Amino acid sequence: MILLSGGLDSVTTLAMALSQGFKCHTISFDYGQRTRSELYAAEKISKQMGAASHRVMDFDMSHIGGSALTDTTIDVPIAGIDKSEIPITYVPARNTVFLSFALALAEVVDANDIFIGVNAVDYSGYPDCRPEYIQAYEVMANLATKAGVEGHVLKIQTPLIDLTKAQIIQEGLVLGVDYSLTVSCYQANELGEACGVCDSCRLRKQGFIEAGVVDPTRYQA
Amino acid sequence: MILLSGGLDSVTTLAMALSQGFKCHTISFDYGQRTRSELYAAEKISKQMGAASHRVMDFDMSHIGGSALTDTTIDVPIAGIDKSEIPITYVPARNTVFLSFALALAEVVDANDIFIGVNAVDYSGYPDCRPEYIQAYEVMANLATKAGVEGHVLKIQTPLIDLTKAQIIQEGLVLGVDYSLTVSCYQANELGEACGVCDSCRLRKQGFIEAGVVDPTRYQA
Repeated sequence: MILLSGGLDSVTTLAMALSQGFKCHTISFDYGQRTRSELYAAEKISKQMGAASHRVMDFDMSHIGGSALTDTTIDVPIAGIDKSEIPITYVPARNTVFLSFALALAEVVDANDIFIGVNAVDYSGYPDCRPEYIQAYEVMANLATKAGVEGHVLKIQTPLIDLTKAQIIQEGLVLGVDYSLTVSCYQANELGEACGVCDSCRLRKQGFIEAGVVDPTRYQA
Repeated sequence: MILLSGGLDSVTTLAMALSQGFKCHTISFDYGQRTRSELYAAEKISKQMGAASHRVMDFDMSHIGGSALTDTTIDVPIAGIDKSEIPITYVPARNTVFLSFALALAEVVDANDIFIGVNAVDYSGYPDCRPEYIQAYEVMANLATKAGVEGHVLKIQTPLIDLTKAQIIQEGLVLGVDYSLTVSCYQANELGEACGVCDSCRLRKQGFIEAGVVDPTRYQA
């Protein structure tokens, strides 16, 4: 089971899981985010890369609010990353909600591994991207489901957790990922073109520079 | 933050939280369940009992399937509870999904306590009703959110965990709960009338008998 946002990290994660021989089911979330072009990207990429199935779970986290990504009255910050605090683009409990749907689906398709492309190096300072969070989620997940009762073990796999953005890109290129198809921008337009100045764009852009490769991202004119 | 299904357990949990002086926000889930009358019950009860707010999160777990409660091609069992296995009414990772939305909302409204009416005595044998699951969820929740980073502690409160169904009913009656408004049945009709024979009805019916009080449940003719 692969959480696939359609961004650089999750697509690389899918490529890594496929290269390790996993049969991959992808799941995306239409959760009331500002930009829906990442959803189209995810669907297209899942098919092209040969996932066994792709599902979209639909719910509206803008009912909950509290983030620039789900509340259009809050601007997406473009001034650069301030590592001293949790940014306003943090969506409360988002990875927990996402992993929980993936957990439900994993149980139904008998998957023992859930892959999530979280990263604790070049990341935006979200609490739910830290290794200690993932470890605690895994412990909980094994108690939550039939897996724990029946004795087989469910793993939360985070192949990107210790990689820099440049290393993620290099790994993906080796595996043949076409990053021009991926959408990482918090406020991409309908064509999937990136703003170039949000935190996510900054991390991605810097990654291509440090990897020493051409940035194939389609930026807004 | 109170998870309110509109059933006997969650309504008693709300009454207990209110009696302890908590300001209560209730949250219900329109998740593709067979019966929607529990949702109407939850909304009505939240208002009557004086909750500060009520929200409904809407998503479709029937896309995920794997349960008689979300897949109408699977019959709800009516032959009685078999404690030797996890029943087909188990919805994969349901409490994990529900708690995760509650966690997101708790973060936005600055709630430090999430109440869930799980019970490990008179229950249907679901893995995500066990105390060890709840404890693991709490550990994870504190790492998932700002709470952990900012140093305040988030608690998952389970006031019913060690009570029998009869004790839950007695507690609720002391607190003035009107159980005729609650809907526990897995396949209640549109009027909120119960089938009387599903596992949930059986546990509830037996609870009223053991509590020695009149069962106010409205049963289907």
